[in-house]
Order: sequence, then structure tokens, then C-alpha cells
Amino acid sequence: MRILLTNDDGIYAPGLRALRRELLKLGEVVVVAPATEQSATGHSVTLATPLLVNEVFDEIDGKRDFLGRAVEGRPADCVKLALLELLKEPPDVIVSGMNAGSNAGINVLYSGTVAAAIEGAFYRITAIACSLEYDGKIYDYAKGAAYCAQMVKQILATDPPAGRLFNVNIPVLERGPIQGVKVLPQNVTQYREKFDRRINPRGRTYFWSSPEFHCPEPYPDTDVTALAEQYITITPLMFDLTARSLLAPLAERTWTVTPVV
Amino acid sequence: MRILLTNDDGIYAPGLRALRRELLKLGEVVVVAPATEQSATGHSVTLATPLLVNEVFDEIDGKRDFLGRAVEGRPADCVKLALLELLKEPPDVIVSGMNAGSNAGINVLYSGTVAAAIEGAFYRITAIACSLEYDGKIYDYAKGAAYCAQMVKQILATDPPAGRLFNVNIPVLERGPIQGVKVLPQNVTQYREKFDRRINPRGRTYFWSSPEFHCPEPYPDTDVTALAEQYITITPLMFDLTARSLLAPLAERTWTVTPVV
Repeated sequence: MRILLTNDDGIYAPGLRALRRELLKLGEVVVVAPATEQSATGHSVTLATPLLVNEVFDEIDGKRDFLGRAVEGRPADCVKLALLELLKEPPDVIVSGMNAGSNAGINVLYSGTVAAAIEGAFYRITAIACSLEYDGKIYDYAKGAAYCAQMVKQILATDPPAGRLFNVNIPVLERGPIQGVKVLPQNVTQYREKFDRRINPRGRTYFWSSPEFHCPEPYPDTDVTALAEQYITITPLMFDLTARSLLAPLAERTWTVTPVV
Repeated sequence: MRILLTNDDGIYAPGLRALRRELLKLGEVVVVAPATEQSATGHSVTLATPLLVNEVFDEIDGKRDFLGRAVEGRPADCVKLALLELLKEPPDVIVSGMNAGSNAGINVLYSGTVAAAIEGAFYRITAIACSLEYDGKIYDYAKGAAYCAQMVKQILATDPPAGRLFNVNIPVLERGPIQGVKVLPQNVTQYREKFDRRINPRGRTYFWSSPEFHCPEPYPDTDVTALAEQYITITPLMFDLTARSLLAPLAERTWTVTPVV
């Protein structure tokens, strides 16, 4: 099996290395990941500036080990570039992660990790986003990655049709034993968030996103709720944003266009 | 009616000014838009760096006219900041645009214009993304904006529940008369795209996204197809990415977790 591994924390992130080590047990792993951290860059792509690519090596026991290619761009750029330019053949699966921090609820839309997976699905390649929730700090990337790999393996064992998209979240490992695996929808309730309002040395006001970003009222039986209850969550995703139930009622209305001259 | 206007082309973009002029006929318009172009930045948000805000004025007949506030951030940052810090009360509707270029098909996911509208819907505010397709160049922003405003007015006349999300596209105006309005789903087939592979002055390879980005096989009765047939398209959107039809079949399977020690 040929696996394309990417992420949004950047090629130097420990979550990518930990997940790579696990995925190497499942097959060949090619890494194409952002050169720098790209958290919360959503489905950004780079149109106006060039994408520089660098080879990145690790040193293991004094030997150079080729880790992969670093792209000066976004997670979705990495997937595009890998599929169109860097890989000789398309991979069997794209894995994105392991992200430091969960990607559940509406965070799915901000997430570069998930966007990279969605980009793979655009190309009809099965893609799995993997994230590890944490509370303050991640203490054990290897353990989180091992759980991700268990999920990747079982998802692939379902023999998904090409282009299927999955979002896997592992709960905070230090909070207690994992209770099991739940397949659940994305939570869609609002997050509570705020900005710090500050004055810069030149007297100008600026705003800084505060880390107080939480989901006060998640629905039961959603990714956010199950994660908090210490379950691993799997959410099948799609990228058709059409609100289908509203199509017919809207289409039935009379819409007019007055020619503008 | 109080309208929050934003975009992804930046506060200095002609599409925003043209749409503002039209929306002023419908109510009060407050502009909070990115300081610089943010095309294809998707649902990026700015977490690590501060958001500077500047007031921007136009000069009309020798008089200073307050245009709005420019945020050194992404389209979604503008909406967050407007709702949490800059506006005294929430607006009745958020309008995002008018974007120079259509936002149809999978471009909906790359679009900062649409992301700004989605961010508004997170806050349960009705939001409408407006885009004008073009072929080479936009010749008449005012005309495009007038068509957008016709759609905004008719969408609001349906009295949508708070938080509803709409994506409006106006076809290339120079291609011929507008054939009418169609309410249709987002097209989800793949785009064909490529990169230019070049060598920089220091001998290093880089890649540059080529403008050859088109949808070779759009489905019939989708936004992409109808735009090409010279219809204005309206697509009701949502931000729940759950592939609901796959939930039950996946949940029925046996998922196991082997404790990692």
C-alpha cells in the first residue's frame, strides 16, 4: 500500500513523525507536508506565489533518513503538488496528521489537516484526517499515533470506494482509558470565543484571538460530545456544501431578473 | 435593515464598493473587510498574530466618506471581529462580495468569500456570498452588483430563518443576456489544474499554480453548468460536512481499540 502523508502542523511537527512511524508498518509512506506550521489555514491554496519544495532529512543513529518533501505552502497545496507533480503514481490513501489538537465540531472547517484530506477526495483518493485532542500539552505522540494507525487500518479494511473521506479524533490520552470507537456526525453548534483588545506601542488598537475557544452546547451523539466522553470518533465527511433540503422550497419560488442597462 | 459587508478581494476591491452602493439602497451598510487580497484563503483564521484594524475613507466630490474598517487578516477574521468587537449589535444579514470571479463547484471550498458567509452562519446570522464570473476581465462592476442586489433582496424576501446561508453567482455579463435565475446544488466533480515547473535563478525547482483551472465534466443541473448557460445561480449552503448516508453503514461495523501501553 502506498500512503501519502501530509499535515498542517508542518513537516517538523512531532505528530507527523509519530504517525509516519506507525504507517510504515502498513506500507510505503511518502511525506509531502508544509514547510511551516499551517494550523487553521482551512482550505487555503497558493495561487499568486511560487511553491518552493525542499527535501527534509532526519538523522537516525548517525545516518541520514529521508523524511520527505517540505512545501512552502498550505496543506491543500501539498496534496495538489504531490498528486500532480511529485509522485509518480497516485497513492492508495492520503493520511493527514497526526494533528496536535482535535478537529471536531466547526473546527473541521478551519482545519488545514481536514482540508488536505478533502483535497485528496477532490482527486478521488481515499483520505483520512487524524487528530489527537490535548489538554495543555501532548505527552505521548507515539501512543496517539498508534491509536490513529489502528483506526486507519480498520477504515481501510472496510474497503471504501475511492474518494471517501474520514475524520478521526483521538481523545486526550491522560484523561483516562479510551472507552471505544464511535461513528458520529460533526457537531455544528457555535463555539464561544473572544478577542483580547490591546494597544500597541504606537497607540493603535489591535485584537488577538484568545485561546478561550470552546463549544458550550454540543449536541449529544456528535464528535465533540463523544470525544469529551473519551471515545475515539470517526466521522465520514463530504465536500458538497449544498443544503439539499432547502433546494426544492427555494426553487419553487418565483425569482425574477430585471435587466440592468 | 443592518448589513455587514465583507469580501475576500480586500477592502480596496472595486467589487466591494460596487456592492456597497447597491446595498445602501436596502439599508445601513457596515464594511469590515480584509486590508489586502485574500482570494483562495478558504476558511483560514488568524490565531498566532494580532489583527490590526484601520479605518478606510473614500474621497467623493472632495469630501471624505467613511468606507469601513480594514482588518489585517482573513475574511473569516473580519466577520468574527465585526460580530465580537466592532459592531454594537449583530447585523440582520452578512453579505460577502461581490467577488471578482465565480465561486461555484469545488471552488466554494477554496473561497474566502464563501468562508466569510459561513462564519456568519456559525453565529446564526443569515449570510449571502455574491460573486461575479468573468472571462479575462470585469468590465462592469456596477452592473454585476446590481444583479447581486436583486438576488439579495429576493432572498431576504423569503424571510430565511437566522443562520441560513446562500451562494449567489452572476454569469459573465458580456457573454449575452441573463437567462434567468436557477436554484441548484454545488457541482462536485474534479477540476483539471496544473502547475508550471520552473527553475529559480539559484537553480532550485519551484512550482507555480497555472490559471488552467477548469471543470471538464460538470454535472447537469449544478451551479457550474447553469452559470455557463448564462443563468444566475443561487445555492443554499450548509457547513455540516458529515456524509450522513455513510453514518449507519459505518456505525454497524465492529470497531476495536487495542490499548496502547
